[in-house]
Order: sequence, then structure tokens, then C-alpha cells
Amino acid sequence: MKAEIIAVGSELLTPERVDTNSLYLTQKLTEAGFAVHLKTVVGDSVDDIETLLRAALRRSRCIVLCGGLGPTEDDRTRAAAAKALQRTISTDTEVLEALRLRFARRGIPMAKINERQAEVIAGAQILANPVGTAPGMWIEEKGAWLILLPGPPREMTAVFESQVLPRFAELGSGRRLERRTLSIHGLTESEVDSRIAPVYQSYPGIQTTVLAAAGCISVWLQRWRSPDEGISDLEELSARMQKVLGDFVFTTADEKLEEVVGRLLRASGQSLAVAESCTAGMLGAAISRVPGSSAYFHGGVICYSNDMKVDLCGVPRELLEGHGAVSAAVAEALARGVRSVAHSSIGLSVTGIAGPGGGSEEKPVGLVYVGLADAMRCTHMRRIFPGDRHTVRELTTTAALGRLRRFLMPGETIP
Amino acid sequence: MKAEIIAVGSELLTPERVDTNSLYLTQKLTEAGFAVHLKTVVGDSVDDIETLLRAALRRSRCIVLCGGLGPTEDDRTRAAAAKALQRTISTDTEVLEALRLRFARRGIPMAKINERQAEVIAGAQILANPVGTAPGMWIEEKGAWLILLPGPPREMTAVFESQVLPRFAELGSGRRLERRTLSIHGLTESEVDSRIAPVYQSYPGIQTTVLAAAGCISVWLQRWRSPDEGISDLEELSARMQKVLGDFVFTTADEKLEEVVGRLLRASGQSLAVAESCTAGMLGAAISRVPGSSAYFHGGVICYSNDMKVDLCGVPRELLEGHGAVSAAVAEALARGVRSVAHSSIGLSVTGIAGPGGGSEEKPVGLVYVGLADAMRCTHMRRIFPGDRHTVRELTTTAALGRLRRFLMPGETIP
Repeated sequence: MKAEIIAVGSELLTPERVDTNSLYLTQKLTEAGFAVHLKTVVGDSVDDIETLLRAALRRSRCIVLCGGLGPTEDDRTRAAAAKALQRTISTDTEVLEALRLRFARRGIPMAKINERQAEVIAGAQILANPVGTAPGMWIEEKGAWLILLPGPPREMTAVFESQVLPRFAELGSGRRLERRTLSIHGLTESEVDSRIAPVYQSYPGIQTTVLAAAGCISVWLQRWRSPDEGISDLEELSARMQKVLGDFVFTTADEKLEEVVGRLLRASGQSLAVAESCTAGMLGAAISRVPGSSAYFHGGVICYSNDMKVDLCGVPRELLEGHGAVSAAVAEALARGVRSVAHSSIGLSVTGIAGPGGGSEEKPVGLVYVGLADAMRCTHMRRIFPGDRHTVRELTTTAALGRLRRFLMPGETIP
Repeated sequence: MKAEIIAVGSELLTPERVDTNSLYLTQKLTEAGFAVHLKTVVGDSVDDIETLLRAALRRSRCIVLCGGLGPTEDDRTRAAAAKALQRTISTDTEVLEALRLRFARRGIPMAKINERQAEVIAGAQILANPVGTAPGMWIEEKGAWLILLPGPPREMTAVFESQVLPRFAELGSGRRLERRTLSIHGLTESEVDSRIAPVYQSYPGIQTTVLAAAGCISVWLQRWRSPDEGISDLEELSARMQKVLGDFVFTTADEKLEEVVGRLLRASGQSLAVAESCTAGMLGAAISRVPGSSAYFHGGVICYSNDMKVDLCGVPRELLEGHGAVSAAVAEALARGVRSVAHSSIGLSVTGIAGPGGGSEEKPVGLVYVGLADAMRCTHMRRIFPGDRHTVRELTTTAALGRLRRFLMPGETIP
């Protein structure tokens, strides 16, 4: 069951852009039982796309093509695919109606060129796009499946999840890639690996992958499973790894750290407010990514200036003058202060030096304090993070969520 | 002068890894006067690599292939290239000697398998590797150049810089890709295209690409330039496009919207505070992405709950009860309120329904108000954005920045 992925777009042939859709698609195709044997990036040229598609139809059972379904002149996938398949294209009135409705709902007129997005290749099944204007297409040609998807990642995944996966499930080859995931915060990649290597080395049939991103580590345990086969070895390895990693594992269910924190807040009936200096909103943005977070998240203060720390979070000016804005004392005062003004059970604060400017010998770029307060206690955590401005801010956001998680864990107390 | 890039390695066909060598290579090839028209990722299979190389030799003047030159079993590029070219392979004694010397200098024995790295395709020029064991090869075949490079990025760039670039310089066509970029906010992709299509259609020698991301549109104008040639047509097209797009163009210098806003705030000596409901920090996070933004950004309030709107931004509770939190009146009150508590010249606010819950017939998911206040005036803007929770929040953040930019533009007054 060979599959290949084609990304269409001249912008993907520049030094600035790389195709990332294929990572998601490779994962999903592999899980569905396909072997991805080729990935190609091609520009917005009808001839190039057509030539590539003809070759792909000869060598692959499943071809997923992303991009070039937009309304503009340089969107040429429909035309190229029709030529490669020697089929006609015509306007689908249902798709056109749906497009019109979409624009009408937003109260803006639909431009004439958007009508191109209602053009459908003869014999294609429409893959409705729940989050954008360009629908995808599912085309069967001599035993091969050609799947056309929109290029923007959000639209591509939405169409794939809602339209393509259910079709794959029906076709079902039987063999599937099984995966267990452990998500970890508080250890480095090499600390994780040195703990788990002695364990996974005795499971040669299971592929173990350690991935790091934005302060969290994921460990993937994967192996192929036939329909008549169990996966007790996978479960066993996962359990043994959890044992050596302890409570640094924050989920085995692929949740984000903010989802875990949200779950713990709900379960304990507590509410949260944040005071953010160097992250200036990133922590609030992360917490509120979780739908329904308004049940426990009150909001907070972006105290980027010292005056905001004093005026809105009640930090004594002497504290700022005596210790500096980036200090343990100010981090704790911010946590207490925002908890008080927001009437929340917990206050979580962040203050640090994200750079590139503002660092000193004593307080270097990357120095960060996280403060945490509830009705009884107040504490802080100090870290020095490496990397550029964006990285420091991202690691700080994750660190604050990680700190809060530890505090919320059953049986845990602030040290 | 068509070029294509082939990345070899089964690990690049997994969900964890993406080929990034091609970004560097695209940059260098483009600068050297080539048009990169195709990029392919292929696994460690002699047959697959051979088939691909045969096709590449027919369609491209220059083929750069990375990876598969290591010493192990799964390094198959040499064998595959020899088959595609129908040439023999033999051990090169000089390369072998250099390899032995390299190991000897490090005081470690050279494994037998490393000898494979001294195998050279008949007629190839050796591209010495200053930082690793795998040398590259430069092969000329019927007017095409096939360049084999090691896969590790550090080795690939070292070989390219020291061995390939000097050869390109000798061949030197001198042609380069020139680009002009227009960044636009406030129009849809199709609105942009319908304005500019009549203009760019009379410049067939210039490639125009329209790209949409997170509420902003980029238009790229590109064409090849010979050493003795001017680019007055590119400048002319850019100027004519700016004319039809008017002040929806926020930069021609590849800046982000928050950088433009920061520049305008600095220039006008004004300061800013934000009140964020549905975006809950995303706006503050965006504004503070710009290094040095503390010069004009005071911070703000994440007023996720109604109490925060009342207690910290001074929104009258009657207003919330009468109009609802997502309303023009509350957006304006938030902008005025945050401006007042933060002692800033300008207050910018956001309130909306990001979903998935919370929508109604009258106030659907995606409904957003942006408020803006300075000492003299207060105004609001209403939008209904499509998409999921994340998209609505992202588009809202961009819309607020866009609104602020319009307000800060010289000669602009709040309508």
C-alpha cells in the first residue's frame, strides 16, 4: 500500500518556506496502513503538476496532494489534475451555493473569482471543508486514490480528519500502527533518554522516539499490529517507562500541558488568575486555548511596565526598587497581588528577561521567576533559559504551566 | 537553468522529520542563478533513488542530492547513482588514504565499513568534506550536473560552501532572482487578487504569487535578472500594485503587522495598553514579540471574566447586563477603561465569541468587537470571523493590530 505526498506551491520552493503538511499526513497515512515512499514539492505550474501526477498514478496506490485549490490565478491544481486524469471540470451548484452562504453569513460579498472554488473534476467526491472556502476532492482512478486537499494547514487537517479518515476506515487494510505517547515536563531530553534507554533496549520490536518541543518532551512507542495480534508488549513498555519517569509524565493521552492543568483546576474546584511581565499574554493565551477554560480562568494582568505591577497588582514600589522587577520577591508579590484583584483561588506570575536587551552579569538574559500563591502559601521558582527572545518566552510559559501542574497534583504541597 | 533537490533518507519519510537542507540549498541555487522547480524526498531504496535520478536527469540542468553517502547498509546513494548513470564504482585510493588519516588523527581505529565511503563513481570529481568522513561528488552527464552531498546539515553546508560554490562561480551565469513583497491587511485574498489581476496581467515576465496567513495577505513579485539588466519593470509593477491596493498595504519591507504598529507608536510618541477578553493575552503576546516594545507598551488586562471587566477596566456592570459582554458598548468601555488604568495614550480592546460554545442566533460564534480609545475619541469595529476557536482568536488578534495601525497612520482619524 504505497502512498506519496505532493505539496503544490511556488512559495514552498523558496528559501523561506518548507512544507510541513507532509509531517501530519505521513503520520495519518502510516496509521492507516500506508507506506509513504515519496514526498514532492512542486511549483504552481499546470505542466509540472500534471507530469508529476501522471508518474504518481503509475507508482502509488494513494496520492495526497495539498495546495493550489484557492480562488486565484496561481491556484492550478484543479486544472492540472483534470488534465492528468483526462477528465472534464465543471461548476458544482451545491458547492457554489455553500460558498455563497458562507460569504453571506459573514456579511461580505463573494468575489467572482471565488466561483472557481466550486469547480469540480468529473467523478470526484467532494470533501467538504469545515473551516475554509476550498473543498477537497477524492478521486478514484484505476485502483488508485487521488486526494486533493487545501494547502493551509488548518484547512488541510480539518478536511483530512472529517472527510478522509472516515473513508480510510471503511477501506481498512487491517494492519495499523499502534502508538503510545508519554508527555513529560521537568526533565531534559537527555535525562529522559538516560532513564528510559535501559528499559526500551529490551523491546527491540517497538520503535521508541524521543521528541522535544517548547519545553516538553514526548516519547513515542510505536509498532505495527495485525488485526489478530495483541499489544501487551506495548502496554508493558509504556507502564515500565512511566515507572522510571515518575510524575514528570503529565499525560499518556496526548493532552497539552494546559489541558492537564485545566482538568486539575476543574477537579479541585479552584480558579486561576495570572500576572505576566516578560510573557505579556502568552500564559493567558495558552490557558485559554482550552475550550471552556472560562469555568476556572478569570484572566489577569499583563504587567509589562513597573507601573502596571504597582497599580494593578499591588506590588509595593519599594520592592521593585529594592529587588528589581525580575526577582523572587516581585514574582511572589505579583502572584499574591493578581490573586487578590482577580478574586481567584490561585495566582500565577511570571517575570523575567526575555532579551535581546536588558541583561546584566548578575541578571542575564533568560533569567526568569515564576510565582505561585494560594490562600495559605506563596512560593517562587527560578530558572535561566537558553535561546532567543521567543524561545525564552515560550519556555517560561511552559515552566509556569508545569509549576502549576505540580501544585495541583493530588497529594502535592508547595515546597 | 532548472534545478531540483533530492533528499535521501527513510527517516525523512516519518512524521518526526522534515528535510531542511533544501531551504539552504534553494537559497544558494537561486543566488547562483538556478530556478528550483522540484524538491523530492525519497527513502533508502536503490530502485527508488535510481528511478528518480533518471527522471531528474531528463528534466533538470542541475540536480543536488543530499544523504545516503554514509558507511552503513542503508546508505545507498552511490550505488543508485551509478546504476542511473550506468557507470562503474571503484575505491579511490586517495580518498581511502584521507579517510584513514582522519581516523588516525582522532586516535580511533577505522571500521571496515568506512571503506565504503572511499567508493567513487567513474568520472566523478571528489568534493572533499572538511568536517566529516563522507566526501561528495560532482558528476557531469550530458550537459547536466549531478551533485551528491552528505546528509548531515553541517557537512552538507561545509561541502557546498567550500567545493560547490566555487565551481558555480566559475560557470557563473550571473542571473539572480529579484523579489518585491507587499504585505496587506483588511482585504480578503480574492479581493486582493481582483484588484491586482488587471495590473499584473500586463507584466507576463514577472511571477505574481498571492499568499494568505492569519488574516494577512502577502503578494510576491519575482523575476530573473541578468547582470546587465535593470529591474524598472519590477519597481513599476510594485508601485502600480501599491496604488490599486492603497493603504491596505502595511509594508513593502517584509515587516510583521506588530512591527509596523510599534514603529508608528514610537514615531508618534504614543503608548498603548490592551484589554483582552476572547484573545486572553494573544494581542499582548503579539505586541511584545517586538524587541524593545516596552518603550511604548504598558501591558493590559486579560479580562476573561465579567468581574475582571468591571473590577480592573471599570466597565459599568449595567452595561454588561444591558448589552452583554460581547457588544460595541462593552468594547468601547474596555478600551477607555484600560487606557485609564494603564495611563497610556491609547487603549485597545477585544471582546468576542471564540467558540466552540457560547454562540447564539443573535451573537454567533466568530462575532468580535474591537474597541479603540485615545484622549479625544472612542470607537469600535464589528466583525464575524469564520473558523474554529484558534482561527477566530488569531484573526481577532490580527484585526485589532490592523485597526490600531489604521488609527496611527499619518493623517488618519477615527471614523
